Amino acid sequence: MATYPESGGPIRRNIPAGDNMERLVCDACGYIQYDNPKIVVGAVAARAGRILLCRRAIEPRSGYWTIPAGYLELNESSEQGALREAREEACAELRLDGLLAVYNIPRISQVQLIYRAELLSEEVAAGEESAEVGLFTPAEIPWADLAFPSVRWALTQYAEVKDAAAFAPFTNPDGETGDYKPNTTSAV
Amino acid sequence: MATYPESGGPIRRNIPAGDNMERLVCDACGYIQYDNPKIVVGAVAARAGRILLCRRAIEPRSGYWTIPAGYLELNESSEQGALREAREEACAELRLDGLLAVYNIPRISQVQLIYRAELLSEEVAAGEESAEVGLFTPAEIPWADLAFPSVRWALTQYAEVKDAAAFAPFTNPDGETGDYKPNTTSAV
Repeated sequence: MATYPESGGPIRRNIPAGDNMERLVCDACGYIQYDNPKIVVGAVAARAGRILLCRRAIEPRSGYWTIPAGYLELNESSEQGALREAREEACAELRLDGLLAVYNIPRISQVQLIYRAELLSEEVAAGEESAEVGLFTPAEIPWADLAFPSVRWALTQYAEVKDAAAFAPFTNPDGETGDYKPNTTSAV
Repeated sequence: MATYPESGGPIRRNIPAGDNMERLVCDACGYIQYDNPKIVVGAVAARAGRILLCRRAIEPRSGYWTIPAGYLELNESSEQGALREAREEACAELRLDGLLAVYNIPRISQVQLIYRAELLSEEVAAGEESAEVGLFTPAEIPWADLAFPSVRWALTQYAEVKDAAAFAPFTNPDGETGDYKPNTTSAV
């Protein structure tokens, strides 16, 4: 599957035959670059009632806390991606046990698949993209310093189903779009 | 958010700082093209026990039957996308009422979000990408002529939860990767 025009020809915005939206099309080789939403995969992972969080060492929202999560890579399943992100960001091994939520953030063309998970060992450590990692009881969660609205959503909704055998995944809370305002205290 | 290098500079495969995979990077402007899996959204939509199917008028698998489904577009939520695909392919109006399944087809870097839906009117018609559309009782479903393995999965799993109040979404059936063999009779 081509990922870039081979010809180096000029790229123009055009509506391909049978389509109804403008795409970036190469005049020379006909290559069409379809830009589509990206998938973020992550997990709320707990062990003995404590939840794994990572303090971000990279922008956006460096210094704020998040669940391990990141972009799904090519040729990777959503489950594999969620496990990989936990390894990369927190040196953590998880066992996924249910899809906690599907969040949509259309403004930035992002769909998030967040799993419920068991943290298999408390031996976790900051990966390259984390400043520190930690395990938090619900009362200890740094609610005011969470990186993104969807982290708050996931932690809140997790509490409702942490012991459920099976459950329908959550979606965005009513009226919430996932947009955050980095320059206000209402960031999350 | 940039979608294409503005500079027209040479593109090379390179591992960006802080990354661990090769990306396509523009030497001149530093633009990084991240290629990630794409999201397919669709629905198993029924009315009075009959399920909406579309016979494809486009490749791949032209002439075979599918549920309405297609690629999620930028700035669209997964629910909006599933509703749009039903309109485009079957002139059908749906009400989504649960996430039926999340399928992974890593070989082609695809994640499918398939919803359970109520078909709001039986007045459906073939859209531009469909040769015909129809409503099928479970016994009438053209199992031998389905377009993709995931269509078979969705129709099979739908039968298990069509009347369930709430349920955990399905995933790929055990051992199934979603790959199909177009030149054999075991295509689905």
